[in-house]
Amino acid sequence: MRVSQLLNPTLREVPAEAEIISHQLMLRAGLIRKSAAGIYTYLPLGLRVLKKIETIVREEMDIKGGQEVLMPIVQPAELWQESGRWDVYGEEMFRLKDRHQREFCLGPTHEEIITDLVRGEVRSYKQLPLLLYQIQNKYRDERRPRFGLMRGREFIMKDLYSFDRDEAGLDISYKKMYDAYCRIFSRCGLAYRPVEADAGAIGGTGGTHEFMVLADSGENSVVYCPSCHYAANVEKAECQPQVIESADAEVPRQLVHTPGVKTIEEAAAFLKVPKTQLVKSLLYQGDDKVFLVLVRGDRELNEIKLNNALGGFVSLQLASPEVVQQLLSCGPGSVGPVEAPETLMVVADQEVALMENAVCGANKENYHLVGIMPKKEFRIDHVYDLRTIIPGEACSNCGTPLKEARGIEVGQVFKLGTKYSKALGATFLDENGIEKPCVMGCYGVGVSRTMAAAIEQNYDDLGITWPIPIAPYHCILVPISTKDAQVVETAERLYQELQNLGVEVILDDRDERAGVKFKDADLVGYPLRITIGSKTLANGQVELKERKGGETKLVPVEEAAARVKEIIKKALSF
Amino acid sequence: MRVSQLLNPTLREVPAEAEIISHQLMLRAGLIRKSAAGIYTYLPLGLRVLKKIETIVREEMDIKGGQEVLMPIVQPAELWQESGRWDVYGEEMFRLKDRHQREFCLGPTHEEIITDLVRGEVRSYKQLPLLLYQIQNKYRDERRPRFGLMRGREFIMKDLYSFDRDEAGLDISYKKMYDAYCRIFSRCGLAYRPVEADAGAIGGTGGTHEFMVLADSGENSVVYCPSCHYAANVEKAECQPQVIESADAEVPRQLVHTPGVKTIEEAAAFLKVPKTQLVKSLLYQGDDKVFLVLVRGDRELNEIKLNNALGGFVSLQLASPEVVQQLLSCGPGSVGPVEAPETLMVVADQEVALMENAVCGANKENYHLVGIMPKKEFRIDHVYDLRTIIPGEACSNCGTPLKEARGIEVGQVFKLGTKYSKALGATFLDENGIEKPCVMGCYGVGVSRTMAAAIEQNYDDLGITWPIPIAPYHCILVPISTKDAQVVETAERLYQELQNLGVEVILDDRDERAGVKFKDADLVGYPLRITIGSKTLANGQVELKERKGGETKLVPVEEAAARVKEIIKKALSF
Repeated sequence: MRVSQLLNPTLREVPAEAEIISHQLMLRAGLIRKSAAGIYTYLPLGLRVLKKIETIVREEMDIKGGQEVLMPIVQPAELWQESGRWDVYGEEMFRLKDRHQREFCLGPTHEEIITDLVRGEVRSYKQLPLLLYQIQNKYRDERRPRFGLMRGREFIMKDLYSFDRDEAGLDISYKKMYDAYCRIFSRCGLAYRPVEADAGAIGGTGGTHEFMVLADSGENSVVYCPSCHYAANVEKAECQPQVIESADAEVPRQLVHTPGVKTIEEAAAFLKVPKTQLVKSLLYQGDDKVFLVLVRGDRELNEIKLNNALGGFVSLQLASPEVVQQLLSCGPGSVGPVEAPETLMVVADQEVALMENAVCGANKENYHLVGIMPKKEFRIDHVYDLRTIIPGEACSNCGTPLKEARGIEVGQVFKLGTKYSKALGATFLDENGIEKPCVMGCYGVGVSRTMAAAIEQNYDDLGITWPIPIAPYHCILVPISTKDAQVVETAERLYQELQNLGVEVILDDRDERAGVKFKDADLVGYPLRITIGSKTLANGQVELKERKGGETKLVPVEEAAARVKEIIKKALSF
Repeated sequence: MRVSQLLNPTLREVPAEAEIISHQLMLRAGLIRKSAAGIYTYLPLGLRVLKKIETIVREEMDIKGGQEVLMPIVQPAELWQESGRWDVYGEEMFRLKDRHQREFCLGPTHEEIITDLVRGEVRSYKQLPLLLYQIQNKYRDERRPRFGLMRGREFIMKDLYSFDRDEAGLDISYKKMYDAYCRIFSRCGLAYRPVEADAGAIGGTGGTHEFMVLADSGENSVVYCPSCHYAANVEKAECQPQVIESADAEVPRQLVHTPGVKTIEEAAAFLKVPKTQLVKSLLYQGDDKVFLVLVRGDRELNEIKLNNALGGFVSLQLASPEVVQQLLSCGPGSVGPVEAPETLMVVADQEVALMENAVCGANKENYHLVGIMPKKEFRIDHVYDLRTIIPGEACSNCGTPLKEARGIEVGQVFKLGTKYSKALGATFLDENGIEKPCVMGCYGVGVSRTMAAAIEQNYDDLGITWPIPIAPYHCILVPISTKDAQVVETAERLYQELQNLGVEVILDDRDERAGVKFKDADLVGYPLRITIGSKTLANGQVELKERKGGETKLVPVEEAAARVKEIIKKALSF
C-alpha cells in the first residue's frame, strides 16, 4: 500500500470529544470516525487491525472444534419472551417494530437465537458436544456512550456457545475456551490475566473468568498472586479471615452509654478500641426479605458476594431507616446482633465469627454493647466470605501477599448451565433414551474492545505502539525525499523486496517533509520503520527503527528486508 | 472436516415454507435456518459459501484500488433528513429510537454515511479518486419476505462508493467496477450477463448496468444479442423503429362512425385494418402535469421509458376518465391526437412518426379518424423510444435478432453524479482552488443473494451442483463401510493426502448406510466425490465422481488425490 492512495486522515490536535487515550489515538491516527454517539465507521487502517484480531480469534476457535455460524442482528421478541429476558433487559436493549408492528430487538447477545437453533436441530447425545460461534455486531443502548470503542453502542464480538450432555462435558468445553482465550490474547501480543469473576446478572450456575488486558487506565481492579497463578476481580477475590488476638482478658458484657455515636469511627474513638474490635451491623433488604449482615468494623461489605451467598436477589440494598426502626426500634447507627428478633436471619463474614470481646450496637439509641462473644452472645445463622479483599492480603491459594493491577475486560468465559436450554426446551435424548436439557456455556471476546484495550496498553507520547501481530502494517518505508532519484529508487526496491518476503509494508510516497511523515508513522504506530535518506545511502545504509523502545540501527540496504522479515517472523511465531 | 462433527442437518422433505428452489435446497442441505420472517442464521456450510463469495468480491475490489472500511448498521435520522430520503423511503426502512428518543434507521444502503465521512475528510482534488467499500448487513422491511435469501429483510451486500473530480473520472471508476463485477461473477463460476438497466428511484444522472445471473426462475427478463455484446433489461432495451409500408395509396382523411368501439382490437376488427395501422393514444398524468402519449396500436407503452424521457415524475399514471372527459370531452377509448388542445403536450414513440394512413381516436365518442398522416395532420412535440422490446427484434447495436433470457439481479453499477455530494456538501477544491462537489458512483453486489442465485442456476433433482469456486468443500470422501479396516484406512489416508495438497476435503465418517451418505453428498452438492469401497479397493481403485454431469471414473488409489487436485486447480484458475 502507498500512503498517497490511502484514506488515513491523521489529526495533530486531540479531539475534544475523546476522554481516554485509545479513543483519542484512534481518532488522531485515522483508524475510526464517529457516525453517531457510540457508533463508528472503521477506516481502512482501523479495519485492518480489527480483521487481524478477528483472524486470530477465528483460528483459535476452529482449533478447539468451534464451528462458525452467522446469526441475525435483528431478533424476534418472542424468543426473548420465552427466555424471560424481554422484560428484564431494560433500556439498554435497542427495540424496534417492523411494518406489521411485530417487535424485535437488536441483539445484545445471542443465547436465545442459538438455543432456538439447537432445540430445532439437536436430538441425540451423539450430536454433542457442539461448539458454535460467530463474529458479529452487538448492540447496547448505553445511557451515555463514550470512550470510543471501549464502550460503544454498536460493537463487534465473538461469541461461542457450548452445548454438552452434562456438567463434566461443560467443564471440558469451558477449559477449551479458557485455553483458547489465553492463546488469543497472547497471540495478539497483549499482557493480560484471566481472573476469577462474578457471575453477575447473566445468571449461570458455575464459574466464570474474565480476561483482563492490563492497563493503568483499566476500569477494573484485579488482584493477583506473584507466586502462584491465582488472580481475581477484586470484587470476587477470596479473602482469608484474619485472626486478631484480643489483648485484654475476657471483658464482661456491658451496656455502655455512647451519646451521639453513630458510626464505626465514632464508636472506636469514643470507646478507645481499634476498629477491628467492632462489629459493623447492617440491615439489608433483598427483594422483600430483610436480614442482618455483620462484618468486622474495619472491613467493607461486598454486596456482590453477599448477593451471591444468599442466592441472588434482583434488588439488594440497605434497608430504609423506617424498616430498621420498625424492626429494631432504633436508627441504622445503633443496630446490633445481640437479641435480634428470632425471625431475622443473621449472616456474618467469616472474620466476625473469630472475634472476641467485640463491640456492637445495642439496638438502642446512644448505647453500645462491649465484651460480646460472637456465637455465644448472639446468633449467626450463616457464615460466608462477605468482604472485599485489600491488596497485600494473603493469596487464598498459597498465602503470598497479593498484588493489585488494573485491567480492561476483553473476554469472559461463563458456565451457563441449563438456564436457557430449560427455558427454551433445548433437550436431547441420552444413551438411555431419557430427555435432558443441554448444559450450556457462553464465551465472549470483545473484538473491537480488544483493539481499544491494546492501545490503552501500548502507546507513548507520540502515538500508538502496536504489538506486531495486530499492527495495521508491519513496516513503513519513509524516503526522506521524493526528489532524490537514488532515495526513491531504493525505497521502491525495498517495497518490492519486503512484499516478496510477505511483509506487510506501506510506502510513504507522499511529497511531504520528512518530519510530517515521521509524525504520522509514529502516531499510527507501525512497529518498524525504515528511513531512506541520501546521507546514509552514501554508505549503503538505511535506518531501521523499532517503534516500541525506539531502538535505531543503521543496516546495509541489502540486508534491510531480511532483518525486518526476521523481526516479524519472531513476533508472529507462537 | 469430518461429517460426524459438523452441524449439517439435512432434510429429506421439501419444507412447506419454501417456494423457490434455492430456498428449498438451502434449508434441505442444512445451509441456513430461519430465525424470523426474512431473517436467517447461516449454518457452517452456508457460511463457508458466503465467505468464499465475500473473498472473491474483496479481492476484486482491492485489485481495482478499493479500500475496505466498515460503516455502521444503525444510522442517525439526521443524515437521511439532509439527503431528503428520510421521508421518501417509506415502510421498507426499519426505523427505531434510542433511549433518548433520537431516531435511527437500520441502513438499507450507505450513501448518506459515506458521503458524511467524505465531506469530513476530503478537501483537495489530490485526494481523489477515492473508492471505498464495505461488506456489511443491509436491511429492508419487505411487506412479505419470502424466497429465502433471494429477498430477505436482513441480507449481506458489498457496496462500493466512488468519489471523483468530474464525470470523466466517474467514467473511469465506473469502468473499473464494471470490469471487476465481470471478474467476480466469472470467478464464482456463474453464467451471467451485464445488462443496461433503468436508473430507477435511486436517482442518478448517468448510466447503470445490472448484473444478472441467468436462471430460468429469474424474476427479471433480459434481451441479449447473440452476435455482439449488447444486452439489456427488457424494460430498458433500445427499440429500433419498424417501418411498415402502407399497402394502400394515400387514403383521404375521413371521420368514420364506429359505434361502441373502444379498444385497439375492436377498432382493427371493425375497420378491417391491421393493428399496426392504428395509433394508440393515452392521456397520462405525471405528478400534476397531463400529456398525450402515442404508440403504434400493436405496441405496449413502456412507462419506465416514458418517465425517464420526461425527466422523472414521482408519480406517473393514466389520467382518470374524469380528467380525459374534462380535457377532450370524450372517454379514454376515443382519445386521439388530431386537433388536440394547444396546451396539451404530445409525446410519441418513434414508430408513430413513421406511420402512414393511420387510424386514431377522434376525441368524439363512437368515431375514429382514418387516413391520418402523423406530423402533417397532428402535432408531435417530442419523439422518443417509448415501447417495450419484443425478443426477436433487431439488436440496436448490430441488427441481429435479440434473444431473451431470464435473470436474477445480483449486482448493479450506478452513476450517481452529484446528488448526494451536493445535498450533504461533500466538496473539494480543484487545481484552481474552486470548490466543487464530488462526482459519485455506487456499486453493489448482493452477496447472500449471489449464493441463492448460484443455486437457482446450479441444481438438479438430487440437490445443489455448486460451481467449484464457491462450493462449501471441494471434495467429499465416502467410505462405504466404517467396519472394513482397509476401507477406513484408505479413506483416512486420502483425507490426509488431499489436505496436504490444499484441497478442501470433508470425510463422511458417520456410521451410516452408503445410500444415506450419497444422498447427503448429492444434496449438499460437493463438486467431487471419492467413494472408497472394498470391491474397487481389491483392484487398488476408488471411484471419482463429478457431481455436475455425474461423470464417474475408477482411478488408482495412489492417483486419486492428484486427480482431484488437478480438477480443482483448473476450476480455480482465472
